[in-house]
Amino acid sequence: MLRQPYLLFLGDAPDALAAKVAQGIKDWRPDVSVGQLRLPGCKADMGLKEMSVAEAAAAGAQTLVIGVANRGGIISDAWMAVLVEAMEAGMDIAAGLHTLLKDQAPLVAAAQRTGRQLFDVRLPVFKYPIGEGKMRSGKRVLAVGTDCSCGKMYTTLAMEKELLARGRKATFRATGQTGILITGGGVPLDAVVADFMAGAVEVLTPPNDQDHVDLIEGQGSLFHPSYSGVTLALVHGGAPDYLVLCHEPTRTHMRGLPHYPSPSLAPLRPLAETLARVVNPDCVSIACSINTAHMSEADAKAYLAKVEDEMGLPATDPYRFGAAKLVDALP
Amino acid sequence: MLRQPYLLFLGDAPDALAAKVAQGIKDWRPDVSVGQLRLPGCKADMGLKEMSVAEAAAAGAQTLVIGVANRGGIISDAWMAVLVEAMEAGMDIAAGLHTLLKDQAPLVAAAQRTGRQLFDVRLPVFKYPIGEGKMRSGKRVLAVGTDCSCGKMYTTLAMEKELLARGRKATFRATGQTGILITGGGVPLDAVVADFMAGAVEVLTPPNDQDHVDLIEGQGSLFHPSYSGVTLALVHGGAPDYLVLCHEPTRTHMRGLPHYPSPSLAPLRPLAETLARVVNPDCVSIACSINTAHMSEADAKAYLAKVEDEMGLPATDPYRFGAAKLVDALP
Repeated sequence: MLRQPYLLFLGDAPDALAAKVAQGIKDWRPDVSVGQLRLPGCKADMGLKEMSVAEAAAAGAQTLVIGVANRGGIISDAWMAVLVEAMEAGMDIAAGLHTLLKDQAPLVAAAQRTGRQLFDVRLPVFKYPIGEGKMRSGKRVLAVGTDCSCGKMYTTLAMEKELLARGRKATFRATGQTGILITGGGVPLDAVVADFMAGAVEVLTPPNDQDHVDLIEGQGSLFHPSYSGVTLALVHGGAPDYLVLCHEPTRTHMRGLPHYPSPSLAPLRPLAETLARVVNPDCVSIACSINTAHMSEADAKAYLAKVEDEMGLPATDPYRFGAAKLVDALP
Repeated sequence: MLRQPYLLFLGDAPDALAAKVAQGIKDWRPDVSVGQLRLPGCKADMGLKEMSVAEAAAAGAQTLVIGVANRGGIISDAWMAVLVEAMEAGMDIAAGLHTLLKDQAPLVAAAQRTGRQLFDVRLPVFKYPIGEGKMRSGKRVLAVGTDCSCGKMYTTLAMEKELLARGRKATFRATGQTGILITGGGVPLDAVVADFMAGAVEVLTPPNDQDHVDLIEGQGSLFHPSYSGVTLALVHGGAPDYLVLCHEPTRTHMRGLPHYPSPSLAPLRPLAETLARVVNPDCVSIACSINTAHMSEADAKAYLAKVEDEMGLPATDPYRFGAAKLVDALP
């Protein structure tokens, strides 16, 4: 677990998209950052208080989180100076970069000197057990999708927020680097060794209060040949009671695979349910979460109505219309 | 790839079962070993010529393969002396032990001194790519099972042998440590990082002659919650044209999971075919391979007839009755 609160480091982000991790933290954990630190030329802005390292330390920041992708895989000298300064001011450093913090000699030296920690959240930090396929108390929701990057993380974060707003017990369970940085903990499932994937998900979603709901971030897709094994480990390790079916209807081919036409939503339901019931015989699909970002509002509403009709399940776009309908679908 | 031929090291195997890797090499690659080396007290015997390290080196042995499980996870001094001697005589060392060769200081020192290599076949040695889900030329058979350890490796090795005996082009593709030691190469799939599982299987089963058949060793089961993700990576990464459905009918619960009753054979077929057709729309099940080790011959024959009737596919036990029926089932 990352120590909170954060100082959100935006570096020299060339545009808002480069700072999408920071945006996620801002959107979903607005109170977790004491402020933001931007370098000259930074074009991203989370609207947080601008702070120097010293000001952030004085405000109680425990971890500097790198909320921006670095350019060209190199951590520049300008970044390095800030990161070292943060450790000297008592902060840990956390990042989900391809370039690992622990491979940067100046950062490793500063961490040793200051006793602070470097968290590369792309890498597992725990030796996970083999999965046991045991049912646990409490309820678990898993987002499954027709493709990668179709809104699964957003869907489960939005459901967590809505549940908490209603006074329910709920926890988003991060399974990817962005989710881990947003919430401060989780399992970077795509970096776990194959034999331990399901066990890692079991550790992530332990027995809980009967009225508690885990919202498990999905990964990949059962239909995505590159990552389907990771998805199935989530379906079995997560032992979900409820599935939310996620889809991006304007996509023409699967992400990263131009030779694969995108699957439709309908076949996802029986496949995901059949597999989920291996572990949890009572698992049911409760709703569809549709990413309508590339549709007009009228088209989106018409499409959602069509999905409800065809799938026999409530359907909404939680980004556009809120997650209430998804939470209402929970028994 | 391991350099061949082998010197087969049986150590101080307390019984034949402890030497099952050696037995596999003896059964499936009878000509790959120049001889066997046994320590005092060894109770296993492959019937190969007894050799000292020096005799094996003179006979051309390139790799000493540890064909036995070590006791208690410790490589004894008696073993160590032989392994060092083998490296000094010009051999590499290969093992699939839980205790890694590369963690043994005397072996690492000897390898550096002699320029020889230590192969821990439990560990991947290659940085595999992300899978692309592309179809390849040639044909691929994948063994899928209702459970772990139900005869998938045996089935594919037996099919390879039968195909080669008929003058066909065929290659067994190992995905586990025993298969890798038997054939000298492969992918230890359960030790590959999640994101690269499917890509590793694609690398293992590259495009080939149109009349060539890859026999891909299966792992785990789509029904086994601990390892199903590994299995699905094989189903998608292997892009099989043909599935052989493997089953052990006397098992009452899934391997390692006493709380999971063993699934029956029938539901495996539609599930495996549905998933396989995501990558290879023409994939079909061609036969059932039944492990009847715990049944009388009469019971086995009656059971096979029942399976053929119920599944509408040829069924045999390749260990008991040969693999001809499985190979005959190839279109």
